Amino acid sequence: MERIEHRACFGGWQDVYRHDSSTLNCGMQVAVYLPPQAAKGGVPVLYWLSGLTCTEQNFITKAGAQRYAAEHGVMLVAPDTSPRGENVPDADGYDLGKGAGFYVDATREPWSRHYRMYDYVANELPTLIEAHFPATSSRAISGHSMGGHGALMIALRNPERYRSASAFSPIVAPSQVPWGEKAFSAYLGDDREVWKAYDTLELLRAATQKLPLLIDQGDADEFLDKQLQPDRLMREADALDYPITLRMQPGYDHSYYFIASFIGDHVAYHAAALKI
Amino acid sequence: MERIEHRACFGGWQDVYRHDSSTLNCGMQVAVYLPPQAAKGGVPVLYWLSGLTCTEQNFITKAGAQRYAAEHGVMLVAPDTSPRGENVPDADGYDLGKGAGFYVDATREPWSRHYRMYDYVANELPTLIEAHFPATSSRAISGHSMGGHGALMIALRNPERYRSASAFSPIVAPSQVPWGEKAFSAYLGDDREVWKAYDTLELLRAATQKLPLLIDQGDADEFLDKQLQPDRLMREADALDYPITLRMQPGYDHSYYFIASFIGDHVAYHAAALKI
Repeated sequence: MERIEHRACFGGWQDVYRHDSSTLNCGMQVAVYLPPQAAKGGVPVLYWLSGLTCTEQNFITKAGAQRYAAEHGVMLVAPDTSPRGENVPDADGYDLGKGAGFYVDATREPWSRHYRMYDYVANELPTLIEAHFPATSSRAISGHSMGGHGALMIALRNPERYRSASAFSPIVAPSQVPWGEKAFSAYLGDDREVWKAYDTLELLRAATQKLPLLIDQGDADEFLDKQLQPDRLMREADALDYPITLRMQPGYDHSYYFIASFIGDHVAYHAAALKI
Repeated sequence: MERIEHRACFGGWQDVYRHDSSTLNCGMQVAVYLPPQAAKGGVPVLYWLSGLTCTEQNFITKAGAQRYAAEHGVMLVAPDTSPRGENVPDADGYDLGKGAGFYVDATREPWSRHYRMYDYVANELPTLIEAHFPATSSRAISGHSMGGHGALMIALRNPERYRSASAFSPIVAPSQVPWGEKAFSAYLGDDREVWKAYDTLELLRAATQKLPLLIDQGDADEFLDKQLQPDRLMREADALDYPITLRMQPGYDHSYYFIASFIGDHVAYHAAALKI
């Protein structure tokens, strides 16, 4: 792993690394915040998955999460949102291809060689982080929008690997909304049975282990009705008696101003679970 | 004033306005953070002046200051760093022309019609803010790099108008460093006597009223030795018995990660002065 950014921040270090991903078959950048406590030994890790159009930079420059990570002694790891590079196929538009990996393992051409973000986030990245940094194997995961989908979905599929999961403005039923339908059709093909493995709503129904979930959602979010629809998830959770805390935040939109306002609550929530 | 952005943030509103500036002879954008307390009545105002290449966006997206402004009930006002628009002259390079107004009133062609950032920040902007928002006339001023120069210089020239001033990584002796020499030569001409009115070091010598100043400076700042040189200011302050607190922050650089790490201290410092 090659360190390409290194900046003092809240008593720790906000770094960015470049590495060759064997899962994605390309070079990737990943942001790592090392809290002050990491200088003395292993610390738990909160993974953050960003939304459409983002890179590893958005969260670290705009969310202000480092303050809380430094307070609680939690490492933050924010990967990019898709494979990158000249050889990686792309599409027109912001919601497919680069910047829009949707955290799935693509099976269709031209995507299947590189677009394997599920495997990358769930497997290669934690292995890499725990080998190269003072990280314990105590993991939590969170994200925003497309990354909220990724965080909930990956946690639900791997409840033994994460202590806690949360999301901001997540896409909870990708199989049933335009963003998800477009991406899943392209990456996974038209068989909707296959989609279920990447759909939070479907995974909730199939869950045998109940991992409590925290979700923040702004009620002025421009994507709320068409793409996000957290009420679908809450109805399912009620029926299943599955523990989900959904906080509808009045006046808040889909931006990083919303994330910044409540990321402190999420870091505290994860820190409590990570240290049990 | 036309509101062009309006986003809930830490219980208040992060807004951006566009207005026609009679001082600068162009349209300008200015960011205004209204803390929750502004819904109930007038609040004091902290003005923030950004550095080279910045617009009104950098501080509001990267510094995380809204959290502290909401805690203390302080309005944040962050103007752009130069006049803007097709009719406004520009120069090659990042350190003259657009994005590089240096908070002076230019007297030379082609700059003098628009580049009047001193007058804009010290006079037009506070008048506008106090007329259109629930702002008291209790003002503080801070900034970064070129904006740190602007904040200290404007406060020293108008000690009756500001309760407190602070800076991150300020250019304290613009008459004696490359950035300042280039800008002052272009905007003000070659007579260095004229430059003194915009030079913190010179203004400190001439000050009749002592406004305590707080400065944070990273010791890993890539511009420290060539452009910033706070030791010049501290030697002068010692000789004059002028109260300046300079905090050298080990490991920190010139970035917004540095500002984010200590902006909470600055907002608290200004809040205390603003509420006396």
